[in-house]
Amino acid sequence: MKKKKENNTGSGLKIIPLGGLEQIGMNITAFQYEDSIVVVDCGLSFPADDMLGIDLVIPDVTYLKDNIEKVKGFVITHGHEDHIGALPYVLREINVPIYATRLTMGIIENKLTEHNLMRGTKRKVVKFGQSINLGQFRIEFIKTNHSIVDAAALAIYSPAGVVVHTGDFKVDYTPVFGDAIDLQRFAELGKKGVLALMCDSTNAERPGFTPSEKTVGRTFDTLFEEHKNTRIFVATFASNVDRVQQIINTAYKFGRKVAVEGRSMVNVIDTAMKLKCISVPENTLVDIDQMKNYPNEQQVIITTGSQGESMAALSRMANSMHRKITIGAGDTVIFSSNPIPGNEKSVTKIINELLRKGADVIFQDAHVSGHACQEEIKLIYTLIRPKYAIPVHGEYKHLTAQAKIAASLGIEKDHIFILSSGDVLELTQEQARIAGRVPVGAILVDGLGVGDVGNVVLRDRQHLAEDGIMIVVMSLERASGLLVAGPDIVSRGFVYVRESDELIEEARQTVDGAIQSCLDKGVTDWGKLKSTTKDVLGDYVWKKTKRRPMILPIIMEV
Amino acid sequence: MKKKKENNTGSGLKIIPLGGLEQIGMNITAFQYEDSIVVVDCGLSFPADDMLGIDLVIPDVTYLKDNIEKVKGFVITHGHEDHIGALPYVLREINVPIYATRLTMGIIENKLTEHNLMRGTKRKVVKFGQSINLGQFRIEFIKTNHSIVDAAALAIYSPAGVVVHTGDFKVDYTPVFGDAIDLQRFAELGKKGVLALMCDSTNAERPGFTPSEKTVGRTFDTLFEEHKNTRIFVATFASNVDRVQQIINTAYKFGRKVAVEGRSMVNVIDTAMKLKCISVPENTLVDIDQMKNYPNEQQVIITTGSQGESMAALSRMANSMHRKITIGAGDTVIFSSNPIPGNEKSVTKIINELLRKGADVIFQDAHVSGHACQEEIKLIYTLIRPKYAIPVHGEYKHLTAQAKIAASLGIEKDHIFILSSGDVLELTQEQARIAGRVPVGAILVDGLGVGDVGNVVLRDRQHLAEDGIMIVVMSLERASGLLVAGPDIVSRGFVYVRESDELIEEARQTVDGAIQSCLDKGVTDWGKLKSTTKDVLGDYVWKKTKRRPMILPIIMEV
Repeated sequence: MKKKKENNTGSGLKIIPLGGLEQIGMNITAFQYEDSIVVVDCGLSFPADDMLGIDLVIPDVTYLKDNIEKVKGFVITHGHEDHIGALPYVLREINVPIYATRLTMGIIENKLTEHNLMRGTKRKVVKFGQSINLGQFRIEFIKTNHSIVDAAALAIYSPAGVVVHTGDFKVDYTPVFGDAIDLQRFAELGKKGVLALMCDSTNAERPGFTPSEKTVGRTFDTLFEEHKNTRIFVATFASNVDRVQQIINTAYKFGRKVAVEGRSMVNVIDTAMKLKCISVPENTLVDIDQMKNYPNEQQVIITTGSQGESMAALSRMANSMHRKITIGAGDTVIFSSNPIPGNEKSVTKIINELLRKGADVIFQDAHVSGHACQEEIKLIYTLIRPKYAIPVHGEYKHLTAQAKIAASLGIEKDHIFILSSGDVLELTQEQARIAGRVPVGAILVDGLGVGDVGNVVLRDRQHLAEDGIMIVVMSLERASGLLVAGPDIVSRGFVYVRESDELIEEARQTVDGAIQSCLDKGVTDWGKLKSTTKDVLGDYVWKKTKRRPMILPIIMEV
Repeated sequence: MKKKKENNTGSGLKIIPLGGLEQIGMNITAFQYEDSIVVVDCGLSFPADDMLGIDLVIPDVTYLKDNIEKVKGFVITHGHEDHIGALPYVLREINVPIYATRLTMGIIENKLTEHNLMRGTKRKVVKFGQSINLGQFRIEFIKTNHSIVDAAALAIYSPAGVVVHTGDFKVDYTPVFGDAIDLQRFAELGKKGVLALMCDSTNAERPGFTPSEKTVGRTFDTLFEEHKNTRIFVATFASNVDRVQQIINTAYKFGRKVAVEGRSMVNVIDTAMKLKCISVPENTLVDIDQMKNYPNEQQVIITTGSQGESMAALSRMANSMHRKITIGAGDTVIFSSNPIPGNEKSVTKIINELLRKGADVIFQDAHVSGHACQEEIKLIYTLIRPKYAIPVHGEYKHLTAQAKIAASLGIEKDHIFILSSGDVLELTQEQARIAGRVPVGAILVDGLGVGDVGNVVLRDRQHLAEDGIMIVVMSLERASGLLVAGPDIVSRGFVYVRESDELIEEARQTVDGAIQSCLDKGVTDWGKLKSTTKDVLGDYVWKKTKRRPMILPIIMEV
């Protein structure tokens, strides 16, 4: 046991991704040097299509729990759900301080408040350029640009060397709020020598350079000019404060009032206003209730729901299910967003709905990505000149695309590591190698339940979803072993029962016959009776319908 | 009644889409002039995401059934599922002759054979340029180009005028098989005067011109040249015979053998070979079993599964679940396809899987669309110069995009009709108007069941999929009204029961208490006992888990 412990420490720096490499989202990476662990980000992911009924997915942090005395803190790069969303769950078990920049911390605090965790959680706001000491580590926060204000890259100093983690980033020379990415600092670090670069891979397949956020502002100017006489709706991501800023700027130029609709967006904008990350000209922002006092051509409504989420404000306004606003003929709806992969169909659905209502829908050119394209990735590599490259943040195809870029810049192939969650990458100045594995996994959150839905339950849900369930109930008398009631069949999600009387009755008779014949032969073993029921009913139903509903025999003893 | 009948006929031409305008797929349109009805296409659509467990969707043809004596035949534009897939179901009720071009009929016959309908179905193969007389109609088949061989546009002659229906088409000046689209005939018809044009809207949002299918052949040449030393897999659509032809051509050039894998593709290619729509150099096509006799660099495997379908050949070969072939390190996989909207995630999943296995994956530039872009649509409108424009084939946003194109070409706005399924558009030389509605709908096919799964069953499946089911069984004695067994709780898809003993037991006690208290008060009405069970258990479970499983109380009388 002691031996094993020793193997787990040593003089190398260990980088241990606990999530984020097999899926979009759930970003969390442990950095360990001897007895010090710092954790970068703590995100959630959204359920895959086959995770029926699941609300969200969080990482398995068994490794951190097993090493709780070593964990010094969470260091957070920015305030997106896939980087902070698991904090309220993980903090209950790993209660260590959180370090983040101003707006990031503001958004985290909204979450902690909601989960009643503010009091028990230590938090420290860090400024760009500032460093914090965590055990054997020093962590420096470096300004970057992203689709949320206050995003940071991290320089992680350890006795084994410096690792630069870009977080999610793009290079924006003309950002809407605050400074451009601190390229000078990246260069300085590179000059001094960086052991490894962990760089955002999201757009590594895309050639060129992501345009500045400011270009979207110019698009708004044009679109507002072209739609002077209509009410304007703009749907975008709740957390994109800069985007909201630009919509407000354009609205102000055109003498329009702005209302923000959608709970998540209202929360973020409130926080951003408190922290002065957004500046709103007086009398521009009005409550949605007040909008009715202004003519259509003086209204702008910024809303959530750009991904076609059926319960979001945009969808409710399009389907006349919103209490205050209904989108209809003559309105202009601008999608300032791209569909996130997997949401294409629901986005198309809402666009069709809006067009059908007579609205003018603009869904091109009013969005730019928040992630670096190939030329930006090359720029960062060229400034940092890392010894080792560890592409992060993306699906496997994105990681391999960045690996190709790194190789094209002269990084040796065996210095490029595409990790899997759970890999322990050990780095020294001399070498890098996968030195082991730690347990990782995805924990499903369903309502209040964290981890109580696993593969068995999901498989049942899948089965129920496909063909429904047939329940066969019967009562046996304890003493005699005689059937005193049933078998009765109740089904749900199988066929529309009122129109399938005959099928169900014939099924019942089939089961009845089989059970009676068992009992006649003296078989009273419940297991045997149940398996007989499953077999004969399953066969009958398959023959008649080519479906395989779940069959659930229930025997009661009276 | 007589009056109504008269209203339904009259001297106008009626165009009645029975499907295809609210969804992608399920294309079927009735053309009626007095006592003659011809039906253009009879397609299926694939289930929407919320149609759990459904295999496919077919149109409600009540209107045709109600007018069965008038229906003269099905006229089919081409052999894609969304144009022919519902035939085996609809023919059982509307048994009229089918008219189609050669390959289209070949593919239809495969279907009819499978459904044992060959003997009872009249079929006539029609050549391009040929016309058929159906009641008051004459239908001329006109050559077009599309992603399947032998696609036709239709000129539908009625006493009220000529309607041109493009079917699905593109303009390909250099098609792989057969002639280019018969633009001269379109021009000739236009010159004589066309009442209405029904034109494919699929790519109406895309500017420019869809490249020729032949450009993909040149891409294959380049890709095969670049991957001379590896085994090559090409995934594409099963029915794209021209694509397969080009892969075979390139394979032959490079001295490779070709195997076709995936049942649906094998069927189509067999049919195409029989009909000489594809020409294969001798000794080029080999059985998949024989491939092992050739070195990797002499192998090409053309396969289904380009949409990431989990049971298709590509997916099975990637996941080592295929009996004969496993894709691994060193193999090259070319996706000669684009993801169909809604399939993006599953396509990405298989790409990641292949990359992880070490394969080289090429998923760009090896595909062209089979549908006309904006410039081609403009060309057709300009040749035809129709009086009325009826955009077809697409979602609402595609139809509106084509409507904009039509308007830009000078067609008056009130001469452009965006129809809904069920609309009766009545056309005369003088006017066009929506003259009524007929019943339409989507009928769900699940296994052998056609239409026995409706909204109630789907809602139950959705509910079961979200949170599972809790079944509460109890036995009451008839005479005394006493509880003689239960209540017992059985759950599926709710929580992992072994780890939730306590929750389930507490739930049971809660129900038990409530039922006992009912019985104590002399309440023995089953309805009341069941609703009490639902209420107390629902409340308890919601409080404890924030979930709402389906609750199904079952009372047995002994």
